[in-house]
Amino acid sequence: MGIAEAVAELRPVLGERLSTSLSDLALHGQNESWYPPMPPDAVAYPESTEEVAAIVRICAAQGCPLIGWGAGTSLEGHALARYGGISVDFSRMNRMLAINPEDMDCTVQPGITREDLNTELRATGLFFPVDPGANATLGGMASTRASGTTAVRYGTMRDNVIGLEVVLADGRVIHTGTRARKSAAGYDLTALFVGAEGTLGLITALTLRLYGQPEAIAAGICAFEDVASAVDTVIQTIQMGVPMARIELVDADTVRAFNGHAGAEMPEKPHLLVEFHGTEAGVAEQAEMFGALAAENGASGYRSATKPEERSRLWKMRHNAYYAILSLRPGTKGLTTDLCVPISRLAEAIEETRADIAASPLMGPIVGHVGDGNFHCALLVEPGNEAELKIAKELSHRMAERALRLGGTVTGEHGIGMGKTAYMEAEHGAGWDVMGAVKRALDPGNLMNPGKLLRGN
Amino acid sequence: MGIAEAVAELRPVLGERLSTSLSDLALHGQNESWYPPMPPDAVAYPESTEEVAAIVRICAAQGCPLIGWGAGTSLEGHALARYGGISVDFSRMNRMLAINPEDMDCTVQPGITREDLNTELRATGLFFPVDPGANATLGGMASTRASGTTAVRYGTMRDNVIGLEVVLADGRVIHTGTRARKSAAGYDLTALFVGAEGTLGLITALTLRLYGQPEAIAAGICAFEDVASAVDTVIQTIQMGVPMARIELVDADTVRAFNGHAGAEMPEKPHLLVEFHGTEAGVAEQAEMFGALAAENGASGYRSATKPEERSRLWKMRHNAYYAILSLRPGTKGLTTDLCVPISRLAEAIEETRADIAASPLMGPIVGHVGDGNFHCALLVEPGNEAELKIAKELSHRMAERALRLGGTVTGEHGIGMGKTAYMEAEHGAGWDVMGAVKRALDPGNLMNPGKLLRGN
Repeated sequence: MGIAEAVAELRPVLGERLSTSLSDLALHGQNESWYPPMPPDAVAYPESTEEVAAIVRICAAQGCPLIGWGAGTSLEGHALARYGGISVDFSRMNRMLAINPEDMDCTVQPGITREDLNTELRATGLFFPVDPGANATLGGMASTRASGTTAVRYGTMRDNVIGLEVVLADGRVIHTGTRARKSAAGYDLTALFVGAEGTLGLITALTLRLYGQPEAIAAGICAFEDVASAVDTVIQTIQMGVPMARIELVDADTVRAFNGHAGAEMPEKPHLLVEFHGTEAGVAEQAEMFGALAAENGASGYRSATKPEERSRLWKMRHNAYYAILSLRPGTKGLTTDLCVPISRLAEAIEETRADIAASPLMGPIVGHVGDGNFHCALLVEPGNEAELKIAKELSHRMAERALRLGGTVTGEHGIGMGKTAYMEAEHGAGWDVMGAVKRALDPGNLMNPGKLLRGN
Repeated sequence: MGIAEAVAELRPVLGERLSTSLSDLALHGQNESWYPPMPPDAVAYPESTEEVAAIVRICAAQGCPLIGWGAGTSLEGHALARYGGISVDFSRMNRMLAINPEDMDCTVQPGITREDLNTELRATGLFFPVDPGANATLGGMASTRASGTTAVRYGTMRDNVIGLEVVLADGRVIHTGTRARKSAAGYDLTALFVGAEGTLGLITALTLRLYGQPEAIAAGICAFEDVASAVDTVIQTIQMGVPMARIELVDADTVRAFNGHAGAEMPEKPHLLVEFHGTEAGVAEQAEMFGALAAENGASGYRSATKPEERSRLWKMRHNAYYAILSLRPGTKGLTTDLCVPISRLAEAIEETRADIAASPLMGPIVGHVGDGNFHCALLVEPGNEAELKIAKELSHRMAERALRLGGTVTGEHGIGMGKTAYMEAEHGAGWDVMGAVKRALDPGNLMNPGKLLRGN
């Protein structure tokens, strides 16, 4: 009984769709962050829920770990095969299963990417708003409870997944939720699997909430003298009830990276990048309210971007911030971390973090989904430089402690994975044991993505 | 070991705050629906989380059931002591613990009522929107995943509880969530306890999301020739992205009840009652868009209610619909049920239900939170008339089957309680067993509100 036996049993089931080629194993052992490669023993490419269930049943009988694989864009090593086993790659389960325009929902397979999903939806006048930047798969986004730039208006994956099909650790297939917009019928299993990082089961279909494409969209950008003024503007805007579609902070270092990498010509000061969705009149009103608050807080050089190509340039620049930041010190990799605090503590959290980084030998620009109180920091580290990695980990450790001290969470959207289990006890106390009890109840053999999220796992 | 021993042990801990008076037991054995009285063996009135934990530890050691009690407004027998035990009445834990205006959140004890909460918030310019009609407690509202008239805009308790303090079945106290607006740190325990109907633990504090009181509010009412035209208006309004704050359907029978009971003088046709929140300009724009769609669907007699006293009269009438409906046949009690379907199936669900009721000897007016696809029916039954109760149960049974056939849920907001466990297998399949596995993991002795929600429980 073991991994090799599971691989042998899977081969006749999947044929060529079970790969043990070195290049495939290497690809599925990589990650976007600083973790060393951890390849699986085989990669399975199922084409249906039934095949996923068959894979799980074989692995369950053989005690073989199972790790879901979407687009590999996770930042906390979620999809690494820490204890070997089978990487279940959903790239062949990437279809749109149903679109219900009247109900403004759709059902997709987990391997569809965010961009492909919105391409498929274009003709309907509907869109799926959650946008973590990376062109992740919807299964991966659900599993990490992803959010991103638009969460301030449309919510995170928690708010926009209304139902799931899940293959449990014993191969049973369940359906959570219905297409009704709300339900009081029992435990919220959908919410239990969203954010479970594949440790409770493998998601094989998702029903998603959609939104009408706004009649009008406007975006804009302005500079502030300091981070506190930008954050004050954010707080006031949210409190005024302005339904911001996006409100993003980039710090002066990030602007410097934009100027170098993206050819932007922006003053090297903190900026807010904003977007408004609504009717023509509504968008104009929102932009005016935001502009007035920004001006009161000393903003300068407000430029609006109403044309689609201007907006898309703006958000492309923002989404590529990580790569721009890497270009500040070519050859490095980012130790990327995120935290989220109550918005009243955000300026404090950012300023303390900036001061801490400034006192270190590393560069670490900050960008943030500040309407949610969420920000990121990419600490630039030379691969193989253990001294730098140690400093980066210490800075990241102090960020996590800061988040907890200020009443927040150690991760707003990247998740726990392998990277942040050390903070689960501090954030959740006995709640972490409750998670462990749920895990043991649903996956007593600890086969679903072992080594992630849970205590001693 | 048993209930009597638990009561004896609790007496020195709680003194006079442990009641075994017959009137108290009778009061806590009542419910708002047709279920017969099921009194507890004693009623505990804790004043702190520590006292709740002490009560739970004693009951756990003695194998004594524990049932939370809020305001007793549940409609599915949730708070009935089906197997006896201790009713934990939270009326002395009804304080506001903290208001954070900058973060637009507050933390309350579970016994605070919805109306008292909003009274406490008034000076801050903030409000808590979830409004199930009844002046329920926030602990009860969280436990049943309540929603109501404003869910179409502000969401349900699922969306508006951001953290909980819970006493588990073994007396441990956990804190779920943080005050940060989002988190990707582990399983979503907050969502697990919201809607768990007290079967996994007792909620002892809640952190709630608040909203700024809108700058402008307008309400209105109009009549339609038939339910389908009203529902089409709702679908189109939602699809246009009009951010309706409330959009409620009352059928012709309910209007007849309003005319009799509340002195309304409305044509006996289906009506939509609507409310708009926003800026002055935004509200005017929304009202215009809604009005145009309603007119296209043949609406007549649109009356707007912009003055606070007009609005409050309108919503008071709506909230008292149940009592108005009861007055259609004095001396009866309502067998009240709710279901929720995808909005594209709503007209069909309502028309089939109306036809089914019309073919029966009972009256059963329909009202609905139609923006969510959710509607209610109150079947008027003479107390003690078993023949009528049987007919009402059969009608209700066909409503539940209809909800599932149309892709919906057997309850949008009332919950499962004792009343709807018969449909859990049909709605959730093996998912119901997953709920059972979670229940056994967290409450192996089945002491937390036994006899509700779960299989064979």
